[in-house]
Amino acid sequence: MTESDVPADAGSAGRADFSTGRMEAFSDGVFAIAITLLVLDLGFPEPGSLHGISLASALAHEWPSYFAYLVSFLVIGIIWINHHAMCALADRVDRRTLFANLFLLLTVSVIPYPTRMLAAYLTTPGRDGHTAAAVYAANMVVMGAAFSLLFFAYTRDARRLHTPVSAKDLRAARRRFGFGGVVYLAAVGLAYVSPVAMLATHALLAVYYCFDQLAPARRTG
Amino acid sequence: MTESDVPADAGSAGRADFSTGRMEAFSDGVFAIAITLLVLDLGFPEPGSLHGISLASALAHEWPSYFAYLVSFLVIGIIWINHHAMCALADRVDRRTLFANLFLLLTVSVIPYPTRMLAAYLTTPGRDGHTAAAVYAANMVVMGAAFSLLFFAYTRDARRLHTPVSAKDLRAARRRFGFGGVVYLAAVGLAYVSPVAMLATHALLAVYYCFDQLAPARRTG
Amino acid sequence: MTESDVPADAGSAGRADFSTGRMEAFSDGVFAIAITLLVLDLGFPEPGSLHGISLASALAHEWPSYFAYLVSFLVIGIIWINHHAMCALADRVDRRTLFANLFLLLTVSVIPYPTRMLAAYLTTPGRDGHTAAAVYAANMVVMGAAFSLLFFAYTRDARRLHTPVSAKDLRAARRRFGFGGVVYLAAVGLAYVSPVAMLATHALLAVYYCFDQLAPARRTG
Amino acid sequence: MTESDVPADAGSAGRADFSTGRMEAFSDGVFAIAITLLVLDLGFPEPGSLHGISLASALAHEWPSYFAYLVSFLVIGIIWINHHAMCALADRVDRRTLFANLFLLLTVSVIPYPTRMLAAYLTTPGRDGHTAAAVYAANMVVMGAAFSLLFFAYTRDARRLHTPVSAKDLRAARRRFGFGGVVYLAAVGLAYVSPVAMLATHALLAVYYCFDQLAPARRTG
Repeated sequence: MTESDVPADAGSAGRADFSTGRMEAFSDGVFAIAITLLVLDLGFPEPGSLHGISLASALAHEWPSYFAYLVSFLVIGIIWINHHAMCALADRVDRRTLFANLFLLLTVSVIPYPTRMLAAYLTTPGRDGHTAAAVYAANMVVMGAAFSLLFFAYTRDARRLHTPVSAKDLRAARRRFGFGGVVYLAAVGLAYVSPVAMLATHALLAVYYCFDQLAPARRTG
Repeated sequence: MTESDVPADAGSAGRADFSTGRMEAFSDGVFAIAITLLVLDLGFPEPGSLHGISLASALAHEWPSYFAYLVSFLVIGIIWINHHAMCALADRVDRRTLFANLFLLLTVSVIPYPTRMLAAYLTTPGRDGHTAAAVYAANMVVMGAAFSLLFFAYTRDARRLHTPVSAKDLRAARRRFGFGGVVYLAAVGLAYVSPVAMLATHALLAVYYCFDQLAPARRTG
Repeated sequence: MTESDVPADAGSAGRADFSTGRMEAFSDGVFAIAITLLVLDLGFPEPGSLHGISLASALAHEWPSYFAYLVSFLVIGIIWINHHAMCALADRVDRRTLFANLFLLLTVSVIPYPTRMLAAYLTTPGRDGHTAAAVYAANMVVMGAAFSLLFFAYTRDARRLHTPVSAKDLRAARRRFGFGGVVYLAAVGLAYVSPVAMLATHALLAVYYCFDQLAPARRTG
Repeated sequence: MTESDVPADAGSAGRADFSTGRMEAFSDGVFAIAITLLVLDLGFPEPGSLHGISLASALAHEWPSYFAYLVSFLVIGIIWINHHAMCALADRVDRRTLFANLFLLLTVSVIPYPTRMLAAYLTTPGRDGHTAAAVYAANMVVMGAAFSLLFFAYTRDARRLHTPVSAKDLRAARRRFGFGGVVYLAAVGLAYVSPVAMLATHALLAVYYCFDQLAPARRTG
């Protein structure tokens, strides 16, 4: 048992196990940076470029940026909380989990890109607004899939978990991922109807997750 | 007791407790990035765009950027020290605290935005300077409120704290938060009188907090 | 033994040993930031600058940016996984290893620069495209060399390793580094033939490393 | 003893002690971000703006950026190594040390600003080049002073140190800080003679520190 826990040939790649700790540290870094880089895309008109409009009303016109910023911040924050909860289940991970985690981080660290594109095109009528919204929604679909993949890679080897996850809990997780996946996919379709409605759906989903996750805490708190 | 400490169904959301450690790691990341991103907004004229003015006097005209940078750096730094002090009180947090923490991080990670807007408009006379200053001050009000909220979510469940906080200490904390809240609100009003005075108020408040917090250490050191 | 483990004169520099932990924390920070900063170089045309082309087809023309982003993300991610595996071998490092690590971090943290240059010049025919590709490939050569250097500095003192690395494993590591070095050097040459083929080579190498490293895990999993 | 170690009134500010661990985590974050943000200031001409010059020779003209990047990277890297060595001396710090650390972080996190200004003005003849170089050198003076301040705040309370620092070692540290301070101050003067010589001095000082610190390791290794 202990033998298989030792990264016996970590240098030469392979069968090695890794502590969850450093995977968490690296992931926390990526989550923290992605969530903070979002602020770089909040803009305002320079003094002298206002042409008689007040700064206040110019900022009011920036609402798509604020809306997209807020939703992306919430999405990354909630993914971080779920990642945190998942990592608490085991002390060691294998390489396969590290790669699944890397795939999740790819989909998370890219979020500032579709966010600023959506902010720029949210109120553009017609196909270009739809394209920007669909790219944003598609990125969320892939991120959701990456998280599901990671979750099953992580919980696949029950011996690794110090907190066994019951079959019932796994079914519940699968149902929840399935539900999230369906809403995420529906949001891609919605992007072609109304970009604002697509973004509002993600906002509502985030708020729903907040309350859903707080509810049991409230019952037992 | 130990049973309730185990994130029994962390995967399926809910009643789970979380170690303070990772909340700190993620928060430290966000604080560190927000405080360091401020530097991206310090500018200087490119060579060849000086039109006969010296670089030295061009930099002297950049004082609003330096002033805003310094105050925002201090504010984030002090919030970090207080966050650090708070986290030392307990080893485990619930989901509600994680969400309160996420709300605080939202208000902190956004600081570079009002900071660069204030830097640009600090010396603009009239309503636009007032608007930029009011946005900056309002962000600080919300941040202060978020920290109070987090502090009470964190200390709410006394059983969780390994260092009990006395009712007297809680009253003192409440008084201090109340005092800070009043000054922060007053600063929003001040923004409409003088943006520079508003920023100076935040600078003084930060310096006051430094000395206030160092004083007891000096008495017992 | 224990005496030599104590950073006896850490303040005055010198013979001191350091815990691997903080080297990992700092490295994780640099890896996480470099991998996340890549997103800042993904661009899109502003609304109103499309001149009749659709946003969708404008984004399709951005494929060199996406391709370069993806390859650089993978390269940094895999280097991080290897760094992680290496750090698991010992608890303490000496100053020489810290400096070798700093050299690796220099070559990693600079990656966003050749990446955005390559993205801009990938489809530029002639010498300038070749130059950008050669700079990218050369940076990878130096990064590979830095990792080899670090690996040998790290494993040099066998007494330091709590997991002894067998002579056979070291030979295997040396072979693998040698193979990687040859491919990396060949990629520099390839840059002068076809920048796209150079980048594809790095992509294939990264995918090869993924599968190569996952294979043994599969055999024993 | 144990009683004084407990952050008894951490919530209400004051006499509290803090674990070194989180100060390190936050500092590592700031160091890692500052060192990685430097890469954002490396530029290259866009395709189509070369007007007949080759990209290779355009990049050769960017040498001031590369030189300034390299020196600033080394300076931050070495400060990090010294910070690391210092933190190994004690497990707990007081608030005063946290504030001294915050002051150091201010001087470190601002480094990308004078670095990009120096890169832009390094080859500008006359007073503007001198100004940019003097700002860079002055920032290093303040950073050196901040590190000395932090070191003495950190080692002031001998009871806190689990590795006692001998009076001889403290004198040696003081001498080294004094020497560094004199060279740093001289570099400010040199900025008015030759910006390139000023930067080369910082490069040489960094290399000197590397070898100086590696030498004892070599003797005992």
